[in-house]
Amino acid sequence: MSKTDTFSKAAADLLGTRGWTSDEEIVTPWLTDWRGRFTGKALGLASPASTQEVAALVKLCAQHGVPIVPQGGNSGMSGGATPDDSGDAILLSLRRMDAVRNFDVDARQITCEAGYILQTLHETAEAEGLRFPLTLGGKGSATVGGLISTNAGGTQVLRHGSMRAQVLGLEAVMASGEIFDTLRPLKKDNRGFDLKQLLIGSEGTLGIVTAATLRLLPALADRAVLWAGLADIRDARKLLLHAERVAGDALEGFEVMPRHSLEAVLAHSPNARAPLEDKHEWNALIELTADASTADALPALARNLLETAFEKGLVADATIARNEAQAEQFWMIRDEIAPAERAIGPAMQHDISVPVTDMADFVAEAVPRVEKAFPGSTAVAFGHLGDGNVHFHVLAPKGATPGEWEKTEGKAISTFVHDEVTAWRGSISAEHGIGQLKRDELARLGDPAQLAILRQVKQALDPHGLLNPGKLVPLETSASSL
Amino acid sequence: MSKTDTFSKAAADLLGTRGWTSDEEIVTPWLTDWRGRFTGKALGLASPASTQEVAALVKLCAQHGVPIVPQGGNSGMSGGATPDDSGDAILLSLRRMDAVRNFDVDARQITCEAGYILQTLHETAEAEGLRFPLTLGGKGSATVGGLISTNAGGTQVLRHGSMRAQVLGLEAVMASGEIFDTLRPLKKDNRGFDLKQLLIGSEGTLGIVTAATLRLLPALADRAVLWAGLADIRDARKLLLHAERVAGDALEGFEVMPRHSLEAVLAHSPNARAPLEDKHEWNALIELTADASTADALPALARNLLETAFEKGLVADATIARNEAQAEQFWMIRDEIAPAERAIGPAMQHDISVPVTDMADFVAEAVPRVEKAFPGSTAVAFGHLGDGNVHFHVLAPKGATPGEWEKTEGKAISTFVHDEVTAWRGSISAEHGIGQLKRDELARLGDPAQLAILRQVKQALDPHGLLNPGKLVPLETSASSL
Repeated sequence: MSKTDTFSKAAADLLGTRGWTSDEEIVTPWLTDWRGRFTGKALGLASPASTQEVAALVKLCAQHGVPIVPQGGNSGMSGGATPDDSGDAILLSLRRMDAVRNFDVDARQITCEAGYILQTLHETAEAEGLRFPLTLGGKGSATVGGLISTNAGGTQVLRHGSMRAQVLGLEAVMASGEIFDTLRPLKKDNRGFDLKQLLIGSEGTLGIVTAATLRLLPALADRAVLWAGLADIRDARKLLLHAERVAGDALEGFEVMPRHSLEAVLAHSPNARAPLEDKHEWNALIELTADASTADALPALARNLLETAFEKGLVADATIARNEAQAEQFWMIRDEIAPAERAIGPAMQHDISVPVTDMADFVAEAVPRVEKAFPGSTAVAFGHLGDGNVHFHVLAPKGATPGEWEKTEGKAISTFVHDEVTAWRGSISAEHGIGQLKRDELARLGDPAQLAILRQVKQALDPHGLLNPGKLVPLETSASSL
Repeated sequence: MSKTDTFSKAAADLLGTRGWTSDEEIVTPWLTDWRGRFTGKALGLASPASTQEVAALVKLCAQHGVPIVPQGGNSGMSGGATPDDSGDAILLSLRRMDAVRNFDVDARQITCEAGYILQTLHETAEAEGLRFPLTLGGKGSATVGGLISTNAGGTQVLRHGSMRAQVLGLEAVMASGEIFDTLRPLKKDNRGFDLKQLLIGSEGTLGIVTAATLRLLPALADRAVLWAGLADIRDARKLLLHAERVAGDALEGFEVMPRHSLEAVLAHSPNARAPLEDKHEWNALIELTADASTADALPALARNLLETAFEKGLVADATIARNEAQAEQFWMIRDEIAPAERAIGPAMQHDISVPVTDMADFVAEAVPRVEKAFPGSTAVAFGHLGDGNVHFHVLAPKGATPGEWEKTEGKAISTFVHDEVTAWRGSISAEHGIGQLKRDELARLGDPAQLAILRQVKQALDPHGLLNPGKLVPLETSASSL
């Protein structure tokens, strides 16, 4: 028997027929990321049913020197769950581990396994008058394990933080096969550094998340959704500060989009309607929320926010959604920007952040710089201004050849944008992670002191480099990669 | 010149006369922790004036193999800032680095150096209509660097989290002498695991915190302080859940104390007065707070909280402080418990946590178990019920010899309490850290998988073991220590 066959047989013995397959027809769909950017090969697909099986599998892989690529919903943006094309690695799907282990409604805590789907989590919480304060487009496929491994974001980070802030306790299998277990959360625990923080956002390179205890919040009783037209992105920053001051904890979302994005949505989506009559260079979408204890005061709070913003000259025009249907209409515009911009033609998309205080200035300066450096291109920045995080899309000049442009001028544009962001001391990955997509850019632009720590920790916790190799951590393999 | 003299001369050349001394008269006061439990020796006292000087000093120490013991206000509880008695190490005081580097009032962020005093931070924030939501008894000496290195807690953790939650950005000098700098905070940054989380709570064993960017909150406009008498600690848990439901984000503190503690304070402090007429087995102290945007609703919220608690039979009796003076009186009782209990006689103090959901059961069961196992002793649990964190004091039997009892029966009691806590999957250090006081207990009771990670990370980031050796991380030096 070949080395590979020996491993496959051992894996099949360990996991059974539901837990192990090398059947190409079953494995192949999971070897390409959902955006179709990356395709790899794998020895087989492991789908363990329990943490103990994951631990035993990791030990087996260590014995045989077989790399492991963990995968949740396979809806990541950076190729972090796609193996390389060597075919040496196994895919480790956590999708079978989708149980709720514990749900303490009083304490507002739920312990679920890594394969639990975000949409299901929302429904489970809602059924008990609670909510999970993080959502994103791929909620129908995104898993708890994937959300934790990538420290996922969304539109509620402003108020509630990213996935990191939702994780109270964690269970993970380390490279040694040992189980790290802090599922019963201690609100206070000062026995050394907080190890679960290392695993959150580590994209499966330090350990395999198998379960988590998450915090839940009281269900929303009401929301007020506001739309404001602005003359300048810098006014959006002032409006954000004003909203924070007036609305305090009620401010849950603050998104911005330029005129270009709104017009692209209006052209692309037949159901979309402009919230305001006049056209404005910038638009802000603001959401205020309330639970049962604060709902009565919400309508007055929303009106007060806008009235005082008018008085201070911060908004050119503004409106409050009259009802839930119109509120959804406003949000639909925001959600349709990415597809609408894509429909125009080829574009390079960048998920970047700079310090919140600098974001308006960054957009005001970087957009014309990019457009000047690449004549004919159009730079569009939209998204989470309140988090210092915009999606910075650069559309190709008219007549550019799709498929070709991305590899030539498009690539130069990304380099340019990442250089700009780095000059502003920002991040080339605000919420989508590094995966394989941005690993080399991280090596090129990352702070040497921070890269050194990243490598030291990776080397310490996964000395044989079997956990999701080639992802996230740029190893010092050659001088050229630095 | 001896090896030591060579180093001293180089350190003096580097740091100047204000920055380096081996004058015993100056150094000695810093060689004993403030509780007088630990005393060590040192080669000298370094007081660098800048991050660059710290970095250069760390490199110099690495060259000479000289260990470094960082020290902030020297008000820690676990001997974490006291060197051992070899005299090999230097004390590194950060107290000269006490500048505010940046204060962005609009963004509610302040960047200050490690030696900045907590009390000063409060005053600086208040002068601009803001507040820093963490405080503790030693605020007149505690420094920002020390608070971060120990992930300090306090009575506001329930609502605002421990020090970890206040840190937006960090600057630290690593063992290599390289400077880790994330002072300009990115709200969203998914370039790998969050390295600053490793440094927070690492007690100077992984790097030396030199500056931080901290979040501030709007100043308090009003508070309501409630006192409730309860028949049973389990009612306190129910009352906490009720308060969370009714008051939501307004709930800032929830402390409990048994009858024994209240009576000890009344006997010890001539100014203390019992808030309620009758005596109750348990007492809860509840604080609700409001900023300008929510202050109007606060009095009604406090009344509603108590009325509904009465209706549900959760409290035996209760009152709301009539004014700020009485509110301070209520809190004074809480703050006087530790000195009042100490005045009774020798006691072993334990700073422990269990999952919040279990705390009431833990206290109800562990108190009689300890008293039964050690006849004549009195176990008293008080503190942060809402955080699952109580200070668990065990008073010596009458007639015990102070100084002697602690080393004999007292020691056995601590072992017993730590075993109990571990059986409940709790922490032997909720907020005071490990330092040298609890290092061996951590080795004895810590989860092997977690201890392994702790050691691996320590080894990776400080391979020569020069950063605060002998603290926090129990190294595998001998089988007996495990």
